[in-house]
Amino acid sequence: ESGTTMQIRYLLNGALPAQDVARLLESSPPKERKLLWELIDSKNEGEVLQYLSEDIGVQFMRDMDTERLIAVSESFESDDLADLLQHLPETIVKEVLASMSTQDRMRVEALLSYSEDSAGGLMNTDTITIRPNITVDIVFRYLRRHNTLPDMTDNLLVVSRSDRLLGTLPLTKLLVSDVNATVRDIMETEYTVIEAEMPASEVAQLFEKMDLVSAPVIDGSNKKLLGRITIDDVVDVIRDEAEHSMLSMAGLDDDEDTFSPIMKTTKRRAVWLGVNLITAFIASYVIGLFQNTLDQVVALAILMPIVASMGGIAGSQVLTLVIRGIALDQIGAANTRWLLNREIIVGLLNGLLWATVIAALTALWFDNIKIAYIIAAATIINLLFAATTGTLLPIFLKKIGVDPALAGSVILTTVTDVVGFLSFLGLATIFLI
Amino acid sequence: ESGTTMQIRYLLNGALPAQDVARLLESSPPKERKLLWELIDSKNEGEVLQYLSEDIGVQFMRDMDTERLIAVSESFESDDLADLLQHLPETIVKEVLASMSTQDRMRVEALLSYSEDSAGGLMNTDTITIRPNITVDIVFRYLRRHNTLPDMTDNLLVVSRSDRLLGTLPLTKLLVSDVNATVRDIMETEYTVIEAEMPASEVAQLFEKMDLVSAPVIDGSNKKLLGRITIDDVVDVIRDEAEHSMLSMAGLDDDEDTFSPIMKTTKRRAVWLGVNLITAFIASYVIGLFQNTLDQVVALAILMPIVASMGGIAGSQVLTLVIRGIALDQIGAANTRWLLNREIIVGLLNGLLWATVIAALTALWFDNIKIAYIIAAATIINLLFAATTGTLLPIFLKKIGVDPALAGSVILTTVTDVVGFLSFLGLATIFLI
Repeated sequence: ESGTTMQIRYLLNGALPAQDVARLLESSPPKERKLLWELIDSKNEGEVLQYLSEDIGVQFMRDMDTERLIAVSESFESDDLADLLQHLPETIVKEVLASMSTQDRMRVEALLSYSEDSAGGLMNTDTITIRPNITVDIVFRYLRRHNTLPDMTDNLLVVSRSDRLLGTLPLTKLLVSDVNATVRDIMETEYTVIEAEMPASEVAQLFEKMDLVSAPVIDGSNKKLLGRITIDDVVDVIRDEAEHSMLSMAGLDDDEDTFSPIMKTTKRRAVWLGVNLITAFIASYVIGLFQNTLDQVVALAILMPIVASMGGIAGSQVLTLVIRGIALDQIGAANTRWLLNREIIVGLLNGLLWATVIAALTALWFDNIKIAYIIAAATIINLLFAATTGTLLPIFLKKIGVDPALAGSVILTTVTDVVGFLSFLGLATIFLI
Repeated sequence: ESGTTMQIRYLLNGALPAQDVARLLESSPPKERKLLWELIDSKNEGEVLQYLSEDIGVQFMRDMDTERLIAVSESFESDDLADLLQHLPETIVKEVLASMSTQDRMRVEALLSYSEDSAGGLMNTDTITIRPNITVDIVFRYLRRHNTLPDMTDNLLVVSRSDRLLGTLPLTKLLVSDVNATVRDIMETEYTVIEAEMPASEVAQLFEKMDLVSAPVIDGSNKKLLGRITIDDVVDVIRDEAEHSMLSMAGLDDDEDTFSPIMKTTKRRAVWLGVNLITAFIASYVIGLFQNTLDQVVALAILMPIVASMGGIAGSQVLTLVIRGIALDQIGAANTRWLLNREIIVGLLNGLLWATVIAALTALWFDNIKIAYIIAAATIINLLFAATTGTLLPIFLKKIGVDPALAGSVILTTVTDVVGFLSFLGLATIFLI
């Protein structure tokens, strides 16, 4: 073994924190990533896996034999383990579950029953529960019997004999309370509680709105306490949600790995290019309708991309803004009309401004005042269509259950291309020929 | 006063939590927003302001007289107040500061000296500090003397007589420790500490990586404890950072208010349209070089947008991926070459695939095999340029200190338009005419 390899092995197995090792793996191309992974000692794999993005972690776990998988799974928290197991073949999952203690297995099985994108999929089962009738002094003694408390414990959860949630006791409150007070006296009865079925995106909004560190999760039907969600897992949801729109608008997957191998990348990208090719051919078809006009006035061919492009840019500004507004839950029936009005007026004002500039430049370039008028009119028309489509399209797509970030930009481009070419070449055919 | 107005007033002043009132204001067009704000009682304004996005909050504060501003500022935490004061005229800031107690004023003045985008600008001064030589029992008694502990207190900070940070004592550890142990025995000496000058984006990365709820902030020069940063403020940074790329790529401001008034919106958008108009005219200029060719073969005018559009789509996929990779700090000198290689190969493969499809459709449509070959070649050339530009451009822009998300898409479109038209019309001029 060379000196360099030994140094790398040393770095990967303790000299660097597991978070940094995970980051290093994520920033490496596939081949190097695999080589580095092989240099990590079995006993450290579990910790590194916890910090790896799910997509990459699952790949490594697929290559492990079951024995090693079982060993690794012991270092996981139940929620992280459940997330990963969801992506592994069922026979392997069964073997891993069979190797666990009854209590742990039941926890993980319960978590596996929830969708990864729900509160149940985000939650962990490491709650500290207390009963309402004991005193603060006894709570302290009870806690002292633990060796450690779970990370991010900011609340103790007060439950009834039948595991129903009665209240929460923040540690910050416990610590300032009279030791003789009972839990019931000092517990919070107004607190945020989450049902296991709540979508992850709503959980994230709730955490952001209420500035939570953790929140208890209950069963929606019988109201029993199931576990808790902590902010570290919610931060991942918030980042994914915020990135989702940008990636989708470029037709990229949410779990797009920057260093995916060539064939995987090619396939994913090919689909998006194919969809956009349809758009491009529709635009060409519209241009083809005016073959005769173009044949007579070649200046039109030179200028026509300007009209389409200005519409596309203006439209995608509106689209981006509305998609974000929808994601932040700011846009609803009450303000759609106002928003549409504003966008149409903004489109008209910017249309007038830039149409004037475009017309002036066109008149100078081609010394033809008629074409200048025509391109100005087409620009204004296209900017108005762009404003209307950019506003209403994402709202409509959302309503019919289609992701506006994914479908929005393709459809918008089709509209602005078609309207751009149609209005410019159409007006030219009427007034020039 | 009508019944409806009374109902709204009731909702805004207590029936709805302040977070929901803030959300309602943010989701309202300017005029309605102002009317709603006027219905909120003075005594509740401070709380609502705390949850409002900064842009909107500052607008309301600008309209207040100084007396009201002083009253409102009393309900703020020092870090939030400092953030807002930064946007108000200096004379007003002085008056507000003069109204505060010496201790509070010194805190806020210290915070005002840091940039909003630094750790100092994010931090709060509400730390609970203890000395290392006392026992756990005394810590408990000390804490019990407080009426409340600050929100999100997960650590007590252990400091020397001269306010230097010696360690942290997590509440979860305090609660399980022997009451006779001293703080020095049980405190954590390996912990994350942040210097006040650290950029907010690095703070966010650190919080995500280390799963922190709060972290102490020290003065970089003398190492004295200044305050702490809590996850709720960091979550805002994480969301803003993740949204930044998407908004910038459409030429929108980070603090873009979905319901900005018409003139503000028009001006902001106009700049972006103007920049893109230059791009469009450059593309038109390139087309104009081939006026004679277009005059002879009108099919070229019909087909040319396809080549430019496929390049634009392929390029923006790469661009988006690389911009995200840079934001996540995954891309550096070590892997740029690999990434470029992959993108060129992916571009070539998808180029071959879609060039074949485009050529077949072209041959069918125009019954001209020569044009089919030419458009295929141009598509492949443009996809290769798109891959190279999409990869290297954002890395280069980042290196010279220009925001890749803002400048990247405009420059990329210019490249794919110019190369698309140039290669298609150029090849046609050589081989057709």
